[in-house]
Parts: sequence; C-alpha cells; structure tokens
Amino acid sequence: MRKKSEKRKKDVSYNKFSKISFNFAVQKNKKMQKPSIPKGTRDFTPAETVRRNYIFDAVKSIFQRFGYLPIETPAIENLSTLLGKYGDEGDKLLFRILNSGDFLSDVSPQELTEKNLNKLSHKLCEKGLRYDLTVPFARFVVQHQSVISFPFKRYQIQPVWRADRPQKGRYREFYQCDVDVVGSDSLLNEAELLQIIEEVFRTLKISVVVKLNNRKILSGIAELIGHSDKITDITVAIDKLEKTGIDKVNEELLSKGITDEAVKALQPVIQLSGTNEEKLKKLDVLFSSSATGRDGIAEMRAILAYAQLLNISVPIELDLTLARGLNYYTGAIIEVKAADVQIGSICGGGRYDNLTGSFGLPGVSGVGISFGADRIYDVLSQLDAFPAAAAQTTKVLFINFGTTEEKHALQLLAKVRQAGINAEIYPDAAKMKKQMAYANSKSVAYVAMAGENEITNNQISLKNMTTGEQKSVTLSEMIEIVKF
Amino acid sequence: MRKKSEKRKKDVSYNKFSKISFNFAVQKNKKMQKPSIPKGTRDFTPAETVRRNYIFDAVKSIFQRFGYLPIETPAIENLSTLLGKYGDEGDKLLFRILNSGDFLSDVSPQELTEKNLNKLSHKLCEKGLRYDLTVPFARFVVQHQSVISFPFKRYQIQPVWRADRPQKGRYREFYQCDVDVVGSDSLLNEAELLQIIEEVFRTLKISVVVKLNNRKILSGIAELIGHSDKITDITVAIDKLEKTGIDKVNEELLSKGITDEAVKALQPVIQLSGTNEEKLKKLDVLFSSSATGRDGIAEMRAILAYAQLLNISVPIELDLTLARGLNYYTGAIIEVKAADVQIGSICGGGRYDNLTGSFGLPGVSGVGISFGADRIYDVLSQLDAFPAAAAQTTKVLFINFGTTEEKHALQLLAKVRQAGINAEIYPDAAKMKKQMAYANSKSVAYVAMAGENEITNNQISLKNMTTGEQKSVTLSEMIEIVKF
Repeated sequence: MRKKSEKRKKDVSYNKFSKISFNFAVQKNKKMQKPSIPKGTRDFTPAETVRRNYIFDAVKSIFQRFGYLPIETPAIENLSTLLGKYGDEGDKLLFRILNSGDFLSDVSPQELTEKNLNKLSHKLCEKGLRYDLTVPFARFVVQHQSVISFPFKRYQIQPVWRADRPQKGRYREFYQCDVDVVGSDSLLNEAELLQIIEEVFRTLKISVVVKLNNRKILSGIAELIGHSDKITDITVAIDKLEKTGIDKVNEELLSKGITDEAVKALQPVIQLSGTNEEKLKKLDVLFSSSATGRDGIAEMRAILAYAQLLNISVPIELDLTLARGLNYYTGAIIEVKAADVQIGSICGGGRYDNLTGSFGLPGVSGVGISFGADRIYDVLSQLDAFPAAAAQTTKVLFINFGTTEEKHALQLLAKVRQAGINAEIYPDAAKMKKQMAYANSKSVAYVAMAGENEITNNQISLKNMTTGEQKSVTLSEMIEIVKF
Repeated sequence: MRKKSEKRKKDVSYNKFSKISFNFAVQKNKKMQKPSIPKGTRDFTPAETVRRNYIFDAVKSIFQRFGYLPIETPAIENLSTLLGKYGDEGDKLLFRILNSGDFLSDVSPQELTEKNLNKLSHKLCEKGLRYDLTVPFARFVVQHQSVISFPFKRYQIQPVWRADRPQKGRYREFYQCDVDVVGSDSLLNEAELLQIIEEVFRTLKISVVVKLNNRKILSGIAELIGHSDKITDITVAIDKLEKTGIDKVNEELLSKGITDEAVKALQPVIQLSGTNEEKLKKLDVLFSSSATGRDGIAEMRAILAYAQLLNISVPIELDLTLARGLNYYTGAIIEVKAADVQIGSICGGGRYDNLTGSFGLPGVSGVGISFGADRIYDVLSQLDAFPAAAAQTTKVLFINFGTTEEKHALQLLAKVRQAGINAEIYPDAAKMKKQMAYANSKSVAYVAMAGENEITNNQISLKNMTTGEQKSVTLSEMIEIVKF
C-alpha cells in the first residue's frame, strides 16, 4: 500500500492542479484517503477535552446548586419542529438529513426538473439537526407537559449545528450550555440567573460585566418616537451602536423608514449616561405616557433590588442598546462580557413569554441564559486561567522494567488506584527514555520506579515531574504525597 | 388559536384517515403542530438524565483511574471517512446530510431522471452522522498522529446514529462509551480492560460474566476443518449457537458451502466443555498443526495469567463461539453479560491490528471495549439498583411565604448553597400545597420553612420529606443535617 502511495505522489505533477489530481486519486482508492473532518467542525484532543470538561463541570455543579436539573433531547429533530423558528436566514442554516431508503419516492419527475431547491429539500428531508437548545426545549415542555411540574428549572448542555460560513470562533458544530426556568413570572428567577452568572465566572476566575435591558423598555422607546410598528428594525439597528457607532446606526434607522424626527428623538434615549438609577430616573420622565415603558422600568428596578439583596457584586449595567437580535424576548435581556478580553458576549439570554405558543401551549413564561463554552474556553486560554489540575490527568506512571518487576508494580498500582488515584503502568518494558517521554507528553505528575533494588527494600523511587526531585518512599508514603 | 384547534378536531371524522387528515392540517398551520420527535430518538427527563449521568460518571472516573483520557470528535464526518467501513448494510444505515446551498449544482438532468439512488446520494450529500466511535477514532489517530504519544489511551463517550429500524431497545440515536489503547501490542492492555470491566460493574453493583475468545483460535478452527477461506461464514454461524442451537448452526454452515465432513469435524471443537484450562488443553492437541491456533492459545493463557495476577474475581469464561460479528478483530474478543438479567451483551470489544490502515497508517495495533449505556440503564432499572442519590437532586427547598419572609429565606439559602448544598426557593408565594407538591415531584429531600415565628426565633422548621419528621433547627444545624 505504502509503495503505491509513494508512486502516486511522484506521478502527480506539481502544478496548481496537483491537489485536485490527488483528491481524485483518493476517490479512486479509498484505502489511501487523507483523513479530514468537515469544515467548521473540530476534534478535541485529551488536553482540550479535559479543559472543556473543566468548564462544563463548573457550570453543571452551579446549575445544580441552584436547583436546575439536566435534560437531553435528540440531535435529530423533525424539520417541522425547527422550520420557521429562526427566520428565513435560520431556515437556510439548518442541516437537513436525507430521508432513508428511497428518498425520491415522493418526488415527481416535474419537481425534479423544476429544481425548486426549497420545495425539493422538503421532499428529500424530513429531519434536521437541532440549531439551538431553546426550540427543542420548548418542544420538550409541550410534549411532556403532563409529567413536568412547574416551575420547571432545567439545564441542557449539548451540541448544536449551523450551516454557517465557518470563520475564526464560529463553528458549524458547537456546544450550548442553557439554563432556563419556565412556568414562573417571578422576577426572582431573573435575579437568580444573575447569581448564577456571578458564581460561574467567580469559579472560573473571569472578571465580567453584566449588561441588562428590558424588551418593554425597548417597546417604550419605539412608542416614544412614534414607531411602535418598527420595534424590530429599531432594536436591530441600535444593537449595533457599540460596534459601528452612532452615525451608522442612524443611517440604518433612516434606511428602514424611521422618520428624521424620530431618529432625532431617539438620540438622547440611546445615549443616556450615568448610574443605573440615573438612567431609570430619566426614563421615568420620558415614559410618562408609555405604560409598557413604565412596566419595563419597574421590572428593571425590581431585578436590581433583588441583586442588591443577594449581594451580587459583579457590575450590572443598564444598557438601552442591548437587544440580542432575538425577537422572542419579552422582558429582561441579559448579556455578559469578559472585562479583560475582547471577545463579544460570553453569556446571554432573557425572558420570553410565549416560547411554547408555537407548539400549542400558550401562556408559559420563561427566562433563561446560555453560556458560550467555546468563547469561555478562549477567554481562559488568553488569560492563562485554566487551573493546573485541568491539565494533569494521570497522577502516577509506573515504569515497566520487565516481566518480574512488572508483577510487583501491578500490585502497587492496584493499591494506588484503590486509593482513588489516577495511575497507570507503561504496558511494556520499553526503553526508559521512551517511557519518560510518554510521562512528559501526558503531563503525568509523578513517575514511580520499582526495580530490583527497590523491590528488595520494599521501597519506591518517586520522581516529581514538575520539580525533578526524586526520593525513596514506601507505598503508603507515596500515596500520601501523590494524593496532595 | 385554541378555538381553531378544537374546531379542527371536531371536523375530522373519526375514521382510519383521521390521523392523516390531522397531520395535513398541522402542515397547513405550523403554529398548531403537535410536537413529536423522530422515530427511534428519545428525550431524557431530568430523572432519566440524572440516572444516565450516574452511569457515565462511573465509567468516566474508572477510565481515568486507569490512565485513559477523553477525546471528542464531531458528530458530522465526511462520508468518505465513513463509507465502506461497515459493509454494504452499514453504508445503508448511515444518516446523510444534504449539502448546503444549491445541492443540485453537481447533478446532471440525466442523473436526476435516472434515479440511481446510491449515485445520487453521493452527489447530494458529502457529510454524514457518525455511525460508531471506532472509525472516527481511527481517523483521529491518523490525522493527529504527529501530536499523539503512543501508546494512546483514550476514552470517548458520545452519541452515534444509525438509520436502523427502531424497535425495543434499539434506537437511531444512542450513546457509546468506548475505551481503547492503540500503539501497544502488550497483552497487559487486554488484562487491564478486564480490570476495568470488573471495576465498572462492581461500582454499578451488577453481577456479570465475561466471555473471552481469540480470533486466532477461530482461525485455527477454520484451518483445522480445512476451510480457512470461509472463516467469516464459520464465525458468523457459530456466533449464533447460544441463540439458535446447534442444528440451526450446522444448517447455516452447510448452506455456506462448508462440507459435511468439516461440519462434523467442527462439532467437538465448538462444544468443548470444562474449565478454561481444560478447554485450552484440548485445543493444544487439536491445534498441533496450526501455528495461528497455537498463537491464539498462548495469548489466551497469557491474558488469563494476568487476570489471576491482578486478582480479577469476575468469572471469565473461554467461549469458542464468541465472534461478535466484527471482521476487524485480530486477537482477543471480549464480551460481558449480566448474570441476573437476560438482555444480551452489555459490553464488548477486542483487539484489532489494522484499524488505521484504511486511513493510510498501517501497523498500529489496538485493543478496546465499548460499554452499552442504554442496556446498562435497563439492567439497573430491572434490578432496581440505582442508588437513591441518583434520584435526589435538589437537597432543600425553601418555602416562599411572601415578600418579607422571602428576603430572610434568600439570606439563608445563600449560606446553604455556599456550603455546597443544592438548594432552591420556590420563586413566588404560591399556596403551601402547591409548593409541597413541587418538592415531592422533584424528590427534594428536605423542605425548609421560615415564617414569621421562625424568623423571630432565628430558627428554621425543617421537614424530612422521606420520613415526614419535622423539627426546629438553627441554620448551622440544618446544614449539618442536610449535608449527611
């Protein structure tokens, strides 16, 4: 096989078509394919997986501390569940799964020649990969409403898929960590989510700023400037204030048919400054004739009062431009940014009053947030804030000196593992250099050696791989040292 | 909305077409769709997820104790990676993902009218969902060989997808828990996998029997009866001995062109009885002229000797009919059955010498096993062997008595959570009956009440929800009780 491959490589002329030729050859002989994964997907090595699990484990244990329970839903959903929930753009980004068996059975010859992609894809595919965890959660709540007791506090940590153009930090397969409570209007839920945010990022040692807004305040603003009908256009535009600046925002507003006058009226509102309470006081005045706006202010004050009562120390900033682009928010809107790393939002969410409505269960209010595991990973990497323990895996490697010593080492190893310590033995008597290289590559903390001398003296030579220090110890001494 | 739905139901005549009519109506009005998930997939409620996590956590911590590290690979693989690895039947069971954008761009009008499904599916789909964790692992090893240090001990716990006909216990989306070591020929690896099996099922409190065979012994048998060419047919047939009985096995062998004489010669071999050593002694004699067979016996003896040295107490039984249907095994073949529940194999695997060969990296030997989480879940359910703790989630629920008491309760709650206890407060001052029902439905262990009296006396009324006992305690007393 190898020879063939070498030969083929030689045959390929090194011009700009060489890659194509090679791919073609691969197609013809599958055995020699160069392995790769689809664009926008990732493999995670042990070091990466251990660090990712450090993040997942931290959020999970905090979610549970706050009384949230895990659920899981299938990766594959019926397209009827997913379509129409994410707008036209979202529909295009759904990965569709070709029907099994005769996928053309339902397609007429005319439909085939017509080449209406949208229509055809509906015939070819009944199922798709989930796009987020929110819509499957809404579906879950409706489908299992008879066995769920409300308020239903659930968390869900699973991958989602989007056929987006891959780029730095944007993947086609990535994890979401969602925590939501549905079936309760109480603003205490919003406050507890702020507590969870504080607790998660304190645990992960990331300084953050929380931005808070309220859809009702956004509605009030739209009312105020006489454009209640254009609330989506307005929020989409002002959401970009930080990124693009006020001029671009105003341009966009005008282009959407917002009047000159209205845009002018909007300026003092979106550029409000001062403390949260100062901003709210100004809004009190502005919203004198908007009941919705005043509701938003009241909710905001209640949440901030809870935050104070709960001693939440992470900075919370009322940001009137925050909209998060999602139309389904109806109350609080929450976003978290890392204070020391420029990376966009690392957590966000809000309240939605009618998420389950599209599945036939109206009137269920919910509030939730989602942690962006990939960005949190990047932040921790940039801050070099992963704990050393998140890199260490096997605590002790026993060197394998050959058949006789191996027998002895296996007895010791069993005792070490019984003490709950992650430990292993090199599986054969390879050269010392090779075994030590293995220990290094795996970031093993200690190497244990028991050769002829050690066996006779009932001792172990224990090497600390960080300091290089080596000493002779008994088994129980070793267990104490290694355990920390 | 609701009215419309009721009306529609009435309009539908209750004949055999009613379901179809209703589905059609749903299609027309997506807002009222009855939520469902695709056949063969599952939602997991909190109670189920917590119990599944109990299994995953147990195997993970044991894998890590033995020096195995986690990796993750994408759910979506290139079809070129997956196709041809699982036989023609397997290829048909792959879920294929429709190409994004203009999925017809590469399809000629002739190909469309031809309706050659296989050819067309290749044009429509470049990617598919992974079918198991073994092939992605082989791809991973080859792709990342430059950064992997061998022997590479990895575990991987992720879902896989198969477009199989769903039936009881067989799903289209299910988890595999694989643990493999590649790049080492040492039989100590096989022995350690047996240790892992013992440790996992001891931890989960499931009595098991381990069945052991060796592909080289199977080859020896095929040689012995003069049918080396038909080893696959022979192993597939004798693999069914336990299920269908000897007559059916012989019938199948004859139908595959195995001679009458050969089938006769096979009888004493596959029906060998006695202890493992008695069986091996008989094979010693039978394999006097088969070098491969003798290699198999030597490997088997070495593994059993290691098992003895390691004090493995779980019964290990040499079973010459064990083949596990997978052609890629080249050495040891391992299967685990529950002793007290009839459910088929709950763990299995073996050694393979050329897994990475199809990706261009020959000569990498590996051995691994896979735990069947779904079947283990079923066994634990049938044995009622899930620990109580795997059902309990929130430890304490604080009753919400209204605005004033809530403030006090929130302070107490914060302290309880700081002590690492999972706790929550009902988010509003609902009726006592409702709050208690919530606690019951969530299997909360304790309910904490702090009304006006308790606040004045700086006490908490703590109710044990299992015994019904209630007593008055201080916060620190409560934390001690609740913590266990």
